Amino acid sequence: MRKPILALAACCMAQFAFAQQEDSLAIRRLSDEMLTGSKAYDNLRVLTKTIGGRLAGSPQMVKAEKWGEAALKAAGADRVFTQECQVPHWVRGEKEQARIISNRRDLVPPLNVLALGNAVGTGPQGVTAPVLEVRSFEELEQKKDQVKGKIVFYNYPFNNRFVKTFQAYGDAVRFRSQGPSRASKYGAVAVIVRSMSHSTDNHPHTGSTRYNDSFPKIAAVAIGLQDADRLSKRIAGDRSARVFLRTTCQMLPDTVGHNIIGELKGSEFPDEYITVGGHLDSWDVCEGAHDDGAGCVQSIEILRAFKAAGIRPKRTLRVVLFANEENGVRGGSKYAELAKANREKHLFALESDAGGFTPRGFIMEMTDAQRSKVKSWLPLFLPYGLYDFDEVGGGVDIGPLRRELGTPVAELSPDSQRYFDYHHAASDVFEAVNKRELELGAAGMGALVYLVDKYGL
Amino acid sequence: MRKPILALAACCMAQFAFAQQEDSLAIRRLSDEMLTGSKAYDNLRVLTKTIGGRLAGSPQMVKAEKWGEAALKAAGADRVFTQECQVPHWVRGEKEQARIISNRRDLVPPLNVLALGNAVGTGPQGVTAPVLEVRSFEELEQKKDQVKGKIVFYNYPFNNRFVKTFQAYGDAVRFRSQGPSRASKYGAVAVIVRSMSHSTDNHPHTGSTRYNDSFPKIAAVAIGLQDADRLSKRIAGDRSARVFLRTTCQMLPDTVGHNIIGELKGSEFPDEYITVGGHLDSWDVCEGAHDDGAGCVQSIEILRAFKAAGIRPKRTLRVVLFANEENGVRGGSKYAELAKANREKHLFALESDAGGFTPRGFIMEMTDAQRSKVKSWLPLFLPYGLYDFDEVGGGVDIGPLRRELGTPVAELSPDSQRYFDYHHAASDVFEAVNKRELELGAAGMGALVYLVDKYGL
Repeated sequence: MRKPILALAACCMAQFAFAQQEDSLAIRRLSDEMLTGSKAYDNLRVLTKTIGGRLAGSPQMVKAEKWGEAALKAAGADRVFTQECQVPHWVRGEKEQARIISNRRDLVPPLNVLALGNAVGTGPQGVTAPVLEVRSFEELEQKKDQVKGKIVFYNYPFNNRFVKTFQAYGDAVRFRSQGPSRASKYGAVAVIVRSMSHSTDNHPHTGSTRYNDSFPKIAAVAIGLQDADRLSKRIAGDRSARVFLRTTCQMLPDTVGHNIIGELKGSEFPDEYITVGGHLDSWDVCEGAHDDGAGCVQSIEILRAFKAAGIRPKRTLRVVLFANEENGVRGGSKYAELAKANREKHLFALESDAGGFTPRGFIMEMTDAQRSKVKSWLPLFLPYGLYDFDEVGGGVDIGPLRRELGTPVAELSPDSQRYFDYHHAASDVFEAVNKRELELGAAGMGALVYLVDKYGL
Repeated sequence: MRKPILALAACCMAQFAFAQQEDSLAIRRLSDEMLTGSKAYDNLRVLTKTIGGRLAGSPQMVKAEKWGEAALKAAGADRVFTQECQVPHWVRGEKEQARIISNRRDLVPPLNVLALGNAVGTGPQGVTAPVLEVRSFEELEQKKDQVKGKIVFYNYPFNNRFVKTFQAYGDAVRFRSQGPSRASKYGAVAVIVRSMSHSTDNHPHTGSTRYNDSFPKIAAVAIGLQDADRLSKRIAGDRSARVFLRTTCQMLPDTVGHNIIGELKGSEFPDEYITVGGHLDSWDVCEGAHDDGAGCVQSIEILRAFKAAGIRPKRTLRVVLFANEENGVRGGSKYAELAKANREKHLFALESDAGGFTPRGFIMEMTDAQRSKVKSWLPLFLPYGLYDFDEVGGGVDIGPLRRELGTPVAELSPDSQRYFDYHHAASDVFEAVNKRELELGAAGMGALVYLVDKYGL
């Protein structure tokens, strides 16, 4: 009785080995195409250097949408279309001003700050007030009686002990998102937040804040790390020190934005979708190269490489350049809303929004069985340096798809060491992206798309 | 009879789990020390910015040796000493000149070239000759009758299909090392070699060449990638095109160099050595930041962090800043020679000489049993992103130790995507090194040293 079973097992194993070799060759074809003929880097150059920062509602965003449509057509999409959505329209206004004022009347350089996204301004006169520095919300609560009339300075340092820097970001970002309202509750007039970064430079890192409607909205800025240290030292040693802060940012009425979508029609199941995307918007003060020009051009590159390598997906591959990730996620919400309304079948969604760095794996939000299936493909990823498939998570823009339709989602997990050097800062420019690293990220994503398309999830 | 075995197994497993947790905590302590209190980045700044390029025999090398001694003392070495050795003394001379000369008499920019290390010069008059482009040694052999009186241009492109870029380097470097003599054999007057790189800029990448004494020594330069393409296009379309080349480099008599060594005395086996090192010399045209300032400051950092974290090694930890890796390996040879002469017991040697990038694993040259032992520690490395322990190899400077004493050796294997953007080119500067990536590399090395010291090999 054992022989047939053994024969069957041997047969299965041979089939498995054959399939694995076939997959390995197909993935190699995709990878070779991306490492030798990629358009990702050139696309990124055009997006960052000719359009630049492209916040939702800005004229640059409109240009970026047109660029996205053209790039998807050039990549060989069967069909390119858009989805309209309402987006917030926040404007930074004039260049922020911040400086230390003191009875010492010494000359000190201005403080390098950026208004937080979605924040209100100080008004044209600015505010001048003493500074209360705290390093935690607990310290704020302990000192709540001292807050009134002050500028609260959240000087919580990025924790370098985290090896994966997104953990340090998750740990620190609450001061940016909740800080203004929690200080306003006790009568603060404005807020300064230490940038969420471990960079060695002095660029402030912006990012959106969230007001709690129960309290007055107050102005809020991020400050560069060197200036955060300088301010901390100054107020500790100079009791007369105050800070003058002037921001003229404001939230205008919602306006129109678009998801830009290109499709490669599936050969067997054209009504089943695999979504691959990044977000087209970026902060206004940078070129948005890593965040998230990289994710956009990698997603477009996958479509191009499938066509160029002659690999037709069984399911319809949808490349989505999402509108408005940074300060609203309205594009991602609209995409899920329409998918639900149209009863679309979404097999899988993959995002790249953690920078154009060397890929190390994927974070995933899916069932255990689905995760096990992806992890069974590990030998096919290892030659490309992707080994880490254990973390839970997914892209911000495809989060609504997960919540509304239960779609399994994943996000490319590139090496994270440099990301927060550039994130939401003026240093996030084309030159900060390495061509090979960008291409390898796309190759890793392409391999996952290929396998999910072939074997399902 | 099964119960005692089970009990024993359970006991062993508990002990193993306990040991693993103890190791995990010790490695975390080392890592925390390096990620929050590292001196590696500051040390690198001083070495690269105040000393700069430091080829064997140069005045900068002497300064670098003094810097190394001081840095090792500052890191807390019990003992700092030097090993004298003879090193080659090659000098570049005046800035290289290279330009296209043609009957068209059009104005074209000069070609960006660098003499290859150890090469002879053209002489002060330079040489002017037609160019024969070849893409392989096979093509050279086929065209051997056309070589006489020509400048041979090896225009073999770096193969981007290799995911690990050191494989592309291994594939292409033969044109730099063997190219001059193989062309001289057929009467070439000089050689131009396409740089071993996939960078997007035009920096030429130097590196040493090796003459075959059977043939006349001819001048040889590396050319930047953009200029290689420009030259190739020009000679294909302009039969009157020749190249003028002028280099005044020369090899002077050997001079004196030193290995710089710092020790942390072992608590139990002070006569057993674990060597950790990088090479102190660099090419003259760059700051030698990735190659190999990074390896030097990482090695020093390991000694500092062991002391700062209160972890005393059982074996003597030797940090070695090797002399003259780039064009002679005389420092590494001397180190092995003295180790053998003094009958030293070398348990293990580890080098970092592949750039200060995020660590991904180690390449190793040791017995299968030793490799299996290192691989059994994988769970302790994964939290730091090191997963790749399969490749065979070791550092150039510790190669002689392997050959002479049979010492098991390893080399840090950092992410390789950016290395050949900078390797041996003017772009290898301090700014190209990321602080966190440098520190994480040191942390990975520190973990391996800790485990080998504790458990042996």
